[in-house]
Amino acid sequence: MPEDDNFALIDVPSAPLGAGQVRVANRWLSVDPYMRGRMNDVKSYVPPFALGEPMQGGAIGEVVESNSPDLPVGAKVQHMLGWREEAVLDAAEAQQLPPLGVEDQAYLGQLGMPGMTAYFGLLEVASAKPGDVVFVSAAAGAVGSTVVQIAKAKGMTVIGAAGGADKCAWVKELGADHVVDYKAGPVARGLMQAAPEGIDVYFDNVGGDHLDAALLAARLHARFAICGMIDIYNDAKPQELRYLAKVIGARINIRGFIVSDFFAQMGDFYRDMGGWLKEGKLKRHETVHEGIAAMPEAFRGLFTGGNMGKMLVRL
Amino acid sequence: MPEDDNFALIDVPSAPLGAGQVRVANRWLSVDPYMRGRMNDVKSYVPPFALGEPMQGGAIGEVVESNSPDLPVGAKVQHMLGWREEAVLDAAEAQQLPPLGVEDQAYLGQLGMPGMTAYFGLLEVASAKPGDVVFVSAAAGAVGSTVVQIAKAKGMTVIGAAGGADKCAWVKELGADHVVDYKAGPVARGLMQAAPEGIDVYFDNVGGDHLDAALLAARLHARFAICGMIDIYNDAKPQELRYLAKVIGARINIRGFIVSDFFAQMGDFYRDMGGWLKEGKLKRHETVHEGIAAMPEAFRGLFTGGNMGKMLVRL
Repeated sequence: MPEDDNFALIDVPSAPLGAGQVRVANRWLSVDPYMRGRMNDVKSYVPPFALGEPMQGGAIGEVVESNSPDLPVGAKVQHMLGWREEAVLDAAEAQQLPPLGVEDQAYLGQLGMPGMTAYFGLLEVASAKPGDVVFVSAAAGAVGSTVVQIAKAKGMTVIGAAGGADKCAWVKELGADHVVDYKAGPVARGLMQAAPEGIDVYFDNVGGDHLDAALLAARLHARFAICGMIDIYNDAKPQELRYLAKVIGARINIRGFIVSDFFAQMGDFYRDMGGWLKEGKLKRHETVHEGIAAMPEAFRGLFTGGNMGKMLVRL
Repeated sequence: MPEDDNFALIDVPSAPLGAGQVRVANRWLSVDPYMRGRMNDVKSYVPPFALGEPMQGGAIGEVVESNSPDLPVGAKVQHMLGWREEAVLDAAEAQQLPPLGVEDQAYLGQLGMPGMTAYFGLLEVASAKPGDVVFVSAAAGAVGSTVVQIAKAKGMTVIGAAGGADKCAWVKELGADHVVDYKAGPVARGLMQAAPEGIDVYFDNVGGDHLDAALLAARLHARFAICGMIDIYNDAKPQELRYLAKVIGARINIRGFIVSDFFAQMGDFYRDMGGWLKEGKLKRHETVHEGIAAMPEAFRGLFTGGNMGKMLVRL
């Protein structure tokens, strides 16, 4: 678990603005579970963070100085330079926010990476279809809460797992047919009660006992989309699975994925999500911390169940 | 682990022969790891064995009395009535051995269920292609030894895991490019030495530390065919996986399967395997026990590393 003294808040002079560059005053910073993986010095799908450098990640801000006709002063943009108050970058590395009529910070959540992760993980990786029984872990999180709502919008039966009465009530409010409170008892027992006939799809944000419960409950030809294993990002312990052999009998198909695999299909995402937003089918919740000094605390909250919906820091 | 006193050898009168039935004198009986699963009283892809009834399973025999023109006396047949010296059954439940010019007992091995499991698991479930680096566990077993040879016949690089110097030498003889002796050290270390660039395909007969090693070594978009988890058939302990999160970063696709899912494609199997047999590309090894009283001992040998190639009992 990252502690405060693993981070340092450092003042540096503003960088000069080169040709084709813009200066962005950040308004919203994203903290996401995948960032924990980049803190380990191992080969992975993205290189590890460098010691002494700012952590990268999603950010929303406003252009305050511009050497690019594409992004004039005042433009709202998204970029990946992460944990800092001000960013200087090539205009081509920033995307102007599309005009979908939602609050800016939604582009770090439902209309950003977490939303895309939910959308492509559920519909492409797990091939979830109307009528399927879908189980999703961390259902009160940024990704999970969007999975619940997309699944309901598509006519699926949804069981969401979350920790504690408040989160469970919110997951119900999002439209989940059943909720499993993992703090109230074993996940496997809760899931078997909620879905006595079993599940067709599991959207995994957690790993561990949630994955094991999904194995136990899996119906024939169940599909598992493995999006994250928040349980083990901070933990060198092996995962214990009691029901792994179920993969054989139920012919389960387990697929890991990274949202960037689907960037070429972004058009589908904006079309569907934009439509559902306009129809009022998508609810959104944010847990907001204030000021850049709150970044470490907000980040840790992702692993200790401290957030409902998207975890953000406002500058 | 099934002990001798879990079995009973019982004399019963020969059944009378009904219309359309044949009496088969069994010559070869098969023991297979999946039978252990049917000894548990749980819902699975096949119903559990009934207490006090003979265990079912593959058998090869000769028709000694016939009420069916389709299967005259002297016909060599295969059936699934299993652990008994004599079987009385409808002619439609027995298949005459196809004339491929091999020894009868091959139809319980490379030309039977283990061979089909190897063929469809490697080529269909794992979509293994020429040039792929393939890792197979229990590579000296009936299924694994056939996987090694099919993979080599198709132009793949093959790493086989087996226990002990004799088995490893035999796996090498089958054409494996590298062999990992799991009794000589951790599988993960052996596999990383044999395949420093990683693997594209894993054919799992074992689960446990072999599966974990494959996760560690998996390249981007690796495919895992999960055929068996011999490590846990007799064991209620959970499986411990240290590298499961690799599923995400490497976008691994893990699929469980049962060979009967592919019976409709049996024609492909006989065409390819028949061809390789004629070209001398397939080696075969059998571990043979004698007499029906040896069945429990032969069966236990599957779980204690007692067999090389197909485990059989000759009557």
